[in-house]
Amino acid sequence: MTRRMLIGGGAAAAVTMTGTRPAAARPSAAGEEVDVAVVGAGLAGLTAARDLAAGGASVLVLEARDRVGGRVLNRELPGGGVTEGGGEFVGPTQDRIKALAADLGVATFATYNEGKNLLYQDGKRTPYATDGPLGAVPPVDPAGLANAAAVQEMLDSMAQEVPVDAPWEAGKAAEWDRQTFDSWLSVHAPVPSARFLIDTACTSVFSAEPRELSLLFVLFYIRAAGNEKETGTLQRLTDTAHGAQQLRFTGGSQLVPLRLAERLGDRVRLGTQVRRIVQAGERLRVESDPLTVSARRVVMAVPPALAARIDVDPPLPASRDQLSQRLPMGAIGKAIAVYPQPFWRADGLNGQVVSDRGTVRVTFDNSPPDASYGALMGFIEADAMRRLDGASEDEIRSEVVADYTRYFGERAASPTGFVVQRWDNEPFSRGGPVAFAPPGVLTEYGPAIRWPHGGVHWAGTETSTFWNGYMDGAVRSGERVAREVLAAL
Amino acid sequence: MTRRMLIGGGAAAAVTMTGTRPAAARPSAAGEEVDVAVVGAGLAGLTAARDLAAGGASVLVLEARDRVGGRVLNRELPGGGVTEGGGEFVGPTQDRIKALAADLGVATFATYNEGKNLLYQDGKRTPYATDGPLGAVPPVDPAGLANAAAVQEMLDSMAQEVPVDAPWEAGKAAEWDRQTFDSWLSVHAPVPSARFLIDTACTSVFSAEPRELSLLFVLFYIRAAGNEKETGTLQRLTDTAHGAQQLRFTGGSQLVPLRLAERLGDRVRLGTQVRRIVQAGERLRVESDPLTVSARRVVMAVPPALAARIDVDPPLPASRDQLSQRLPMGAIGKAIAVYPQPFWRADGLNGQVVSDRGTVRVTFDNSPPDASYGALMGFIEADAMRRLDGASEDEIRSEVVADYTRYFGERAASPTGFVVQRWDNEPFSRGGPVAFAPPGVLTEYGPAIRWPHGGVHWAGTETSTFWNGYMDGAVRSGERVAREVLAAL
Repeated sequence: MTRRMLIGGGAAAAVTMTGTRPAAARPSAAGEEVDVAVVGAGLAGLTAARDLAAGGASVLVLEARDRVGGRVLNRELPGGGVTEGGGEFVGPTQDRIKALAADLGVATFATYNEGKNLLYQDGKRTPYATDGPLGAVPPVDPAGLANAAAVQEMLDSMAQEVPVDAPWEAGKAAEWDRQTFDSWLSVHAPVPSARFLIDTACTSVFSAEPRELSLLFVLFYIRAAGNEKETGTLQRLTDTAHGAQQLRFTGGSQLVPLRLAERLGDRVRLGTQVRRIVQAGERLRVESDPLTVSARRVVMAVPPALAARIDVDPPLPASRDQLSQRLPMGAIGKAIAVYPQPFWRADGLNGQVVSDRGTVRVTFDNSPPDASYGALMGFIEADAMRRLDGASEDEIRSEVVADYTRYFGERAASPTGFVVQRWDNEPFSRGGPVAFAPPGVLTEYGPAIRWPHGGVHWAGTETSTFWNGYMDGAVRSGERVAREVLAAL
Repeated sequence: MTRRMLIGGGAAAAVTMTGTRPAAARPSAAGEEVDVAVVGAGLAGLTAARDLAAGGASVLVLEARDRVGGRVLNRELPGGGVTEGGGEFVGPTQDRIKALAADLGVATFATYNEGKNLLYQDGKRTPYATDGPLGAVPPVDPAGLANAAAVQEMLDSMAQEVPVDAPWEAGKAAEWDRQTFDSWLSVHAPVPSARFLIDTACTSVFSAEPRELSLLFVLFYIRAAGNEKETGTLQRLTDTAHGAQQLRFTGGSQLVPLRLAERLGDRVRLGTQVRRIVQAGERLRVESDPLTVSARRVVMAVPPALAARIDVDPPLPASRDQLSQRLPMGAIGKAIAVYPQPFWRADGLNGQVVSDRGTVRVTFDNSPPDASYGALMGFIEADAMRRLDGASEDEIRSEVVADYTRYFGERAASPTGFVVQRWDNEPFSRGGPVAFAPPGVLTEYGPAIRWPHGGVHWAGTETSTFWNGYMDGAVRSGERVAREVLAAL
């Protein structure tokens, strides 16, 4: 494989080198010697590279795929238009991704949220208003609503006890990390309809079943759904109007990493799978298939499970290696059906479903801002995704369209286009949207998530203290690691 | 790195090729084309190679280390003699490792078990007989004994419901796999002294804390501690006289893989780290640092977390990849202190301790059969090991010797030699003795543990239906995969 340029290497001139420290010359086309090699051109790696370059360091971003963006990916729709195969939403307190997008001239628009949501339960469709006294809480039976509200309050309250930068130091960390979220729910969410709501929130947020997750990790994740000023809440994770699904990016979320990479120009190398990092005196030799780079520092900006597949010599400490064995990726896919119009809108529906069955149990209206066509996006989560990782796209289409038809009626039965994105099958993601912690991991290995060792530093949304698992967390991690590395150079 | 011979390649002649099928010629020194490439020269890989060769297939075993044996390792002691740094014990129903050792002329002897065990609890030493009515159950308070006995009975009884070849099909698989062993114990082992006994058994058996383990996995592991005729029990896992610690190998357990490798001769290549396996038409190209091998089938005989670090092209199915992200290695070390005599024997002690504190909480008398010197072996498990993964050997020695002195008196304070083996730090083990399953994994991904795909077959003790995690399981897995591959060739 030969070195490939991204999108017009000439655009690299857009980033000026401020040269505040004695950096190596801007890498030549051969690009063998830099201050910092960044592994992975997702939002974390690209943000790190931007800040490192701005800080005067020479930098190369090595990306295994033939595209940038990692878990952020625009998919072209049959018939034109674009939709997101990966991360797409942003919301309140996600300051860093918003600032980055604004800086790059990528606009946002509100996720379509006019009209009613739809609850599908026990085979029955119930539209409900999103602005009720409880917000957008699906109208299950009163006992279930009361139980779900109590659980939400308990989780939020417990989450406040979890320090975002050291969840393992929570007063009850040991108690919360020794059980699954499922075990906790089996005590505190006894009402079946409450359990259905919380399970659906769980799989939507984590792409993992409650049985897989440490309770402490769930609490950390809730607490992290905020910023330095506003603490996280479960509702901010799940809400559309006032939460993490509030806004979308005009042109698709991948525009952000694409434009960022454009600015970085030939500092970004695609088709460059890093296989080995070897300490050689004061420097690190970063070996990829087409290219060997010598760097003073390395930033690993890929998920822990994938970082572990890169051979580091001398080996990383046991705490880091065993951590990376214990942070698996969730199981997730997205299915987008295209229609001539967003016909559900005329029925007074906003396209958002919460369902107790089906391959897709949570949907959104993914139509473009001008509604020139309709798009229904559905998440395929955890157990539902695992069942279909090996299925044909036709099988998945058939199951998903049947779900959409149950939810939105016969007009949903004949999409003009269909796209499915399975992250579990992507060789350079192997799941998504984020790595999660089973019981025991945070208290046993947590601090290793950000510990640099032997010149290797860690980025990626999994390392973020705010909006862990989100695009905002990825950007924050890139900014943090750039500061860390610049201070160390 | 150049290809290295094991121990006199001439010994290869000891294995005759029966030639029942059209096999490629015995590999030349260049060794590029074979029927089967085996990744890993532990007991599983070597056993597979033996059976494959006996079945007429040409085979090469590619081992990353400069030795064979994997998690089975003889360590030379200061002052002479040998002890085991890894797997060392065998016991009843471990038929396959015993048959292999017998075939190779490696003798066994009884683990020293004369005299009394020692309970160390709340700072108090209590010797106790190993042949009491409860077997070798430490004499904690009566309430604790009763609670521990009840728990043991419950676990054994539940384990009987778990099919060894498909734990995910147990009637209560979903219920047992959604909780940690800790959550179950918090209900069923309320008496602190019972909890201490069970926690100690848990860390000794799994090198993992109860909070890390799926209850279903614990039950499977208990059920698997047997053979086709006798079902497994918790006591068989923990017992010395009648259990998994009954016997040791004269000359050290690594003699078994060493002699097996000797028979295989230059079919075993050391210093050969496999990095990539690429499907090329009908064959697989196995790329290692010094050597590229073309094979019709590949046997992966390394733990799942390490197998995941070998790049397979085209990629393995999501079920396999995500499984390998979810089966971490336990955290384990062994510390052996050497003394001029096994002085504890004269005190009527057998050298076996169960302690509620300390770096080492479980010990054995690892002296040689002729007792020409004394050796105390202690396990450093789970949380205790994690705390010391990065410590100096002197620090560990100081902590361990202090433990031994509390247990066995002042004479233990001055060992003439000390050896510590930390498996977490071994680049080609990264933990031990075995991979374990956190909640959710067996029910979600279990079947993938043995599914061959694209010419790649799976061995290793983690794939065994009996004595999973033990040397016997490794041998069984090698025998099973050889049958599987011979049938497919």
